[in-house]
Amino acid sequence: MAKIRLRLVFDHAMLGPGKAELLDHIAATGSISAAGRAMGMSYKRAWSLVEDMNAAYIAPLVRSARGGSGGGGASLTETGEAVLSHYRKLESLHSQHGAAEIEALEALLQPPQSDMSEEK
Amino acid sequence: MAKIRLRLVFDHAMLGPGKAELLDHIAATGSISAAGRAMGMSYKRAWSLVEDMNAAYIAPLVRSARGGSGGGGASLTETGEAVLSHYRKLESLHSQHGAAEIEALEALLQPPQSDMSEEK
Repeated sequence: MAKIRLRLVFDHAMLGPGKAELLDHIAATGSISAAGRAMGMSYKRAWSLVEDMNAAYIAPLVRSARGGSGGGGASLTETGEAVLSHYRKLESLHSQHGAAEIEALEALLQPPQSDMSEEK
Repeated sequence: MAKIRLRLVFDHAMLGPGKAELLDHIAATGSISAAGRAMGMSYKRAWSLVEDMNAAYIAPLVRSARGGSGGGGASLTETGEAVLSHYRKLESLHSQHGAAEIEALEALLQPPQSDMSEEK
């Protein structure tokens, strides 16, 4: 089933469902690599998203201690918690107030195909 | 000034400010290449976005006559008008109901720098 999700496009950055989910997993697991693994994402990719996010806001969203035998640890900063919470709130306002429009758009979407291999 | 815009993420496609603006320009100019030019976009890029959009929905969003000495002509189909109008409506609901959250998020964004050249 088609599902519409929300991405916020800023001047020099974006915040969408993937980054929000990564922040959720970091808060839950206390580890960037464990958060990435939970999403089937490479360690490198997860770190790169965290670095992007840390650079895009007035303060880092994730604090982390690289290395150490335990592999460091990671958690959301106050700014990280605020950004995530604003995003979740917008997402929920969007589903709540946009329900009719979203449903109309979803009805116009091509149903997912088993394989999108017919690429030009 | 930072400005948050809305991108909708579907399972196999996306709809955001760039594509919406392209559809607007196609409706206004009657031409895919003129619409692309108005946005500083190459002919190739504009066509590629239109092809993506035409493939993503149950019917094409843009009808066009390629070639001819006048360069063909393009217009939005009924589906194209419907998709654009649902997107604009969602965008407006988003600004209307999400204003407080958007303002809070914008206040947390790094102010735009003259040059984002400090890339890692």
